[in-house]
Amino acid sequence: MQRFALLGAGFIGSVHARNLAAHPDVDLVVVYDIDDARAQDLARRHGSRAAGGLGEVFDADRVDAVFIASSTDTHAQHLRAAADAGLAVICEKPLAPDLAAARDVVAHVRRSGVPAMLDFNRRFDRDHAALRRVVAEGGVGEVELLQLTSRGPSLPPIEYLEVSGGQLRDQTVHFFDLARWISGQDPVSVSVTGSALADPRIARFGDVDTSVAVLTLPSGALVQIDSVRRTGYGYDERIEVMGSTGLVESRRHHRGNVVHYGATGVVADALPPGWFERVEPTYAATLAAFVDALERGTAPPVTLEDGLVAQAVADAATRALVSGRTETIAYP
Amino acid sequence: MQRFALLGAGFIGSVHARNLAAHPDVDLVVVYDIDDARAQDLARRHGSRAAGGLGEVFDADRVDAVFIASSTDTHAQHLRAAADAGLAVICEKPLAPDLAAARDVVAHVRRSGVPAMLDFNRRFDRDHAALRRVVAEGGVGEVELLQLTSRGPSLPPIEYLEVSGGQLRDQTVHFFDLARWISGQDPVSVSVTGSALADPRIARFGDVDTSVAVLTLPSGALVQIDSVRRTGYGYDERIEVMGSTGLVESRRHHRGNVVHYGATGVVADALPPGWFERVEPTYAATLAAFVDALERGTAPPVTLEDGLVAQAVADAATRALVSGRTETIAYP
Amino acid sequence: MQRFALLGAGFIGSVHARNLAAHPDVDLVVVYDIDDARAQDLARRHGSRAAGGLGEVFDADRVDAVFIASSTDTHAQHLRAAADAGLAVICEKPLAPDLAAARDVVAHVRRSGVPAMLDFNRRFDRDHAALRRVVAEGGVGEVELLQLTSRGPSLPPIEYLEVSGGQLRDQTVHFFDLARWISGQDPVSVSVTGSALADPRIARFGDVDTSVAVLTLPSGALVQIDSVRRTGYGYDERIEVMGSTGLVESRRHHRGNVVHYGATGVVADALPPGWFERVEPTYAATLAAFVDALERGTAPPVTLEDGLVAQAVADAATRALVSGRTETIAYP
Amino acid sequence: MQRFALLGAGFIGSVHARNLAAHPDVDLVVVYDIDDARAQDLARRHGSRAAGGLGEVFDADRVDAVFIASSTDTHAQHLRAAADAGLAVICEKPLAPDLAAARDVVAHVRRSGVPAMLDFNRRFDRDHAALRRVVAEGGVGEVELLQLTSRGPSLPPIEYLEVSGGQLRDQTVHFFDLARWISGQDPVSVSVTGSALADPRIARFGDVDTSVAVLTLPSGALVQIDSVRRTGYGYDERIEVMGSTGLVESRRHHRGNVVHYGATGVVADALPPGWFERVEPTYAATLAAFVDALERGTAPPVTLEDGLVAQAVADAATRALVSGRTETIAYP
Repeated sequence: MQRFALLGAGFIGSVHARNLAAHPDVDLVVVYDIDDARAQDLARRHGSRAAGGLGEVFDADRVDAVFIASSTDTHAQHLRAAADAGLAVICEKPLAPDLAAARDVVAHVRRSGVPAMLDFNRRFDRDHAALRRVVAEGGVGEVELLQLTSRGPSLPPIEYLEVSGGQLRDQTVHFFDLARWISGQDPVSVSVTGSALADPRIARFGDVDTSVAVLTLPSGALVQIDSVRRTGYGYDERIEVMGSTGLVESRRHHRGNVVHYGATGVVADALPPGWFERVEPTYAATLAAFVDALERGTAPPVTLEDGLVAQAVADAATRALVSGRTETIAYP
Repeated sequence: MQRFALLGAGFIGSVHARNLAAHPDVDLVVVYDIDDARAQDLARRHGSRAAGGLGEVFDADRVDAVFIASSTDTHAQHLRAAADAGLAVICEKPLAPDLAAARDVVAHVRRSGVPAMLDFNRRFDRDHAALRRVVAEGGVGEVELLQLTSRGPSLPPIEYLEVSGGQLRDQTVHFFDLARWISGQDPVSVSVTGSALADPRIARFGDVDTSVAVLTLPSGALVQIDSVRRTGYGYDERIEVMGSTGLVESRRHHRGNVVHYGATGVVADALPPGWFERVEPTYAATLAAFVDALERGTAPPVTLEDGLVAQAVADAATRALVSGRTETIAYP
Repeated sequence: MQRFALLGAGFIGSVHARNLAAHPDVDLVVVYDIDDARAQDLARRHGSRAAGGLGEVFDADRVDAVFIASSTDTHAQHLRAAADAGLAVICEKPLAPDLAAARDVVAHVRRSGVPAMLDFNRRFDRDHAALRRVVAEGGVGEVELLQLTSRGPSLPPIEYLEVSGGQLRDQTVHFFDLARWISGQDPVSVSVTGSALADPRIARFGDVDTSVAVLTLPSGALVQIDSVRRTGYGYDERIEVMGSTGLVESRRHHRGNVVHYGATGVVADALPPGWFERVEPTYAATLAAFVDALERGTAPPVTLEDGLVAQAVADAATRALVSGRTETIAYP
Repeated sequence: MQRFALLGAGFIGSVHARNLAAHPDVDLVVVYDIDDARAQDLARRHGSRAAGGLGEVFDADRVDAVFIASSTDTHAQHLRAAADAGLAVICEKPLAPDLAAARDVVAHVRRSGVPAMLDFNRRFDRDHAALRRVVAEGGVGEVELLQLTSRGPSLPPIEYLEVSGGQLRDQTVHFFDLARWISGQDPVSVSVTGSALADPRIARFGDVDTSVAVLTLPSGALVQIDSVRRTGYGYDERIEVMGSTGLVESRRHHRGNVVHYGATGVVADALPPGWFERVEPTYAATLAAFVDALERGTAPPVTLEDGLVAQAVADAATRALVSGRTETIAYP
């Protein structure tokens, strides 16, 4: 049984709270949020209690592991505190707003020796994981071209976008990670083309809402990732991997399996209305993998270093978007 | 908040226990099973307790509603006891092993006035329900031909099959109900052709494992239902409704959305390995509908009479299998 | 090189004329039709000439093979004439309006020893043939349940339907043949349920436009065939074969491969508007198989006896529709 | 009736010969090839005759139109000769090996005033054309992201590749044209990333066999094209257009419509084995469009200038592959 503290009681925090409460080997002992009422409300719904302060969170007598789902700018600080308290820790991305700070905190946690995991939840998508197994077992031969599609249904609030770090760091970063994870290779260079099409205000702060990133892997294989903030037809996420002998794809999901045949066309269910409908099951699966590693005493399946690499790719991609050149990726 | 007693702690009882425990408006106060250890074990897992005897179940001071998931031969007796105690009741099919007894118990419950519902869970399949909405909204015009496919992946134990009442009463009955529910019509006659192909021992007790039933509805529309006990390719359930202007189908489910392209073929994920993977979400949805009706004081969306009608169709179908003729269906 | 005479210059005759003209090993020497102007027009379009009378058709000095695509009531007479003239012959179904007459003509042609083939063109559908190969190679184990769907988009003229011999003899007969051909078994009994739903006038002359036929094969395997005259959603033809270890299907065709994703649904191309769009390629393939047999001196791949068997099944099915019983099929 | 001369009796010439011979409004009067025996053989098969010399081709008394399917280095010369003779002309791509020469010949033909068309046959793919109609009718709103996939099943001979002008000019050029045609916009800049993965010898002459090109359109919309020389899983061509309100795709084709369900997976027919199986119908459709324009006296639907633009894009793309930068596209 693992005793967890949850940091953050916003939307994603409440998702984690539900999963923590439902996990048979987890005891959600305390919930903390900067907004105490919000923490109390969430804690009550899951038979837990709100922490009076951070001292009750980073307390190895009462807590075994910390789940960091607080606001982005607090991740690094909470990671350090967990490490200093000797607590296992799982953290939402990003590790820190900038790469140098992220490197420091990862080094700090690494030195402490506590089990630590980044919540790259898309690795726990059942279809993506099955695709990776096909690749790993040589089902497509040598990997030659990966194509990843990441498309949200509607534009997040402009206020969010302005502080998000940009589409490549905020949205595409998950797919930089997936590409590495599936191919087993760290990309060496990246070029990016992008536009602000859904809302011209996005261009004012130098960001894009529609972009294509192309990465080169050490083997010469290519990775193409298209990222779109607003589609008009629902949430569209898929991955294709072409190799020397075949292709494997993790297809778009539809809302259901009902098909309507008429004289002028055949109508199937639309795509999921939002990203959450599509990825919801991955959060529980990510948590389960972390808890399983803690219970068995094995290494968590995603490391903070994985987050660092994805962030380095995203940084180089952001430079490439501006420079119009292929940028070499420098790793920590 | 509805206080529930659960009767039956076998496989399906444990499914209901989990759903009862997870429902926000339900308090699972007591679990009963003829095997007391089994009841205790299931109760413990869900923070409930085992009943010392049936007296603790049919006790209106402590219980509002009873969920009957005990063995088939006890359904009628428990339905009567619930009615006599003034408790709401939801019951697994069948109501009773033979139609006359089923009629009696339904009349008894009806007279008591307690809210009562049959657990025809497939009505709460999301795709089937969406298909029915298309039909109800006139999306295919006048209904002309319904086709339902019910195919299990592997043969149940021969001991079970011998006492199951036969394929038409045990398996097809769910689809007789779906056909009524979707078309809004009670079938007037039925013919059936069947064979025992998966295991010849099934023929010895007069049953079949592969059958096609054809029903005629009052409008002249036809219903065709194929029922198979063992497929070799997984669990296959689907429905098509053809009308005067179009067709709507609720398609087979696959295990996932991964597709592998090679030189000799394109391989997609297989069908679900078992019926439970396919229908699992329907149990929680059925319970939710029952609880919602209790909370609102409305009529439960499936009645015991619905069970009676489906059973009458199954009886006529069983006669038709033997006679080789189209049999008229006599309703209660 | 095979010198062909074509009998019949109506719609289907003109299809055959085009295929005969395009076949590299065929010389279409003469076209005959009871309407001479029609024959002349068709002949001219394909660089052939119209016959002044039947004497020019059944003339072994100028003709090697006869293609009978004239009106149904003339088939038997033309078959006899071809046999008497020592000419190879391919004939549209049916052989003759009634089974006894069909038996006589088949015996007559058989005694003459000329190569003879029935134009059961759907056997030459590329997908259906591929499905049959999967079955023949044991890809689904022992055959247990065949399901065939035959659905036309719109009602033929009532005048045609009145003299068509009924839906089972006119439409379903092709699928009785496919079921035999795929399973390699001659059905032993049949039951049928049907209704006249698209046009009540059809019921006045004892016919149906929507029917389900269920056949039992000697192995106990079942065959289910649904036949519909008018769908409202295009032409729908497909076949499924379930065996002891798997399922194979020859799917519906769509008009194209364009898919449109919107917020409320995903729209694919409709089904073919008519039967001809779907089956057109089978006519050339049937002709090619006949010519190939003539060139090689091998037996044509479909026999007149195949037509006789299908007709016997259709006759028993027509009786079953009236009797409401399972009818045994008597073979010639 | 249009009298055609065909230049070139190689593989693609023989395809055109068959289509010319089958077109009801075309008379294929003469075939020319540098290899006279080859010309004679092809002419004989289609009831035409071989030209003794080019004088018999460019002869307005006997010929109305010339189809140029000879080797690439002769296109420009034949285009000029046709123009000078006052003959209509349709020509395979490319116009000339380099852009300057192509510009000159296009100007020359334009001045002559003869009807001239480039054989960009993929515009006449039924599915691609249907996709374009959806886009043109506003079915996806404002175009924002086009994705085109061009993947051949197996590597052409290395000798061919060495003189092909490179993957972008030889293979991708068709898709540069499709992107323009579908979007209605001429791209302003392009970046390309590529590798030689199927055969390292390709890298020796500076070419690639796997590449991703990204173009920016004047509206800011992006175009992504992946080109692959050898897939291992058949011929894969498809197009997706995402707009502000939806997505439309022209899907991969499969060889057939047969699907096989087993315990471990669901196997559908593979992709076409070669590009020709996929694009064959487009050649006849292209020819039909050209003949139709000649018969009606309207402008051919694809111009030589269209070829010039696609070639300019391919040139810029080839520069971008080397420079690693986004290259601006200079138009004639």
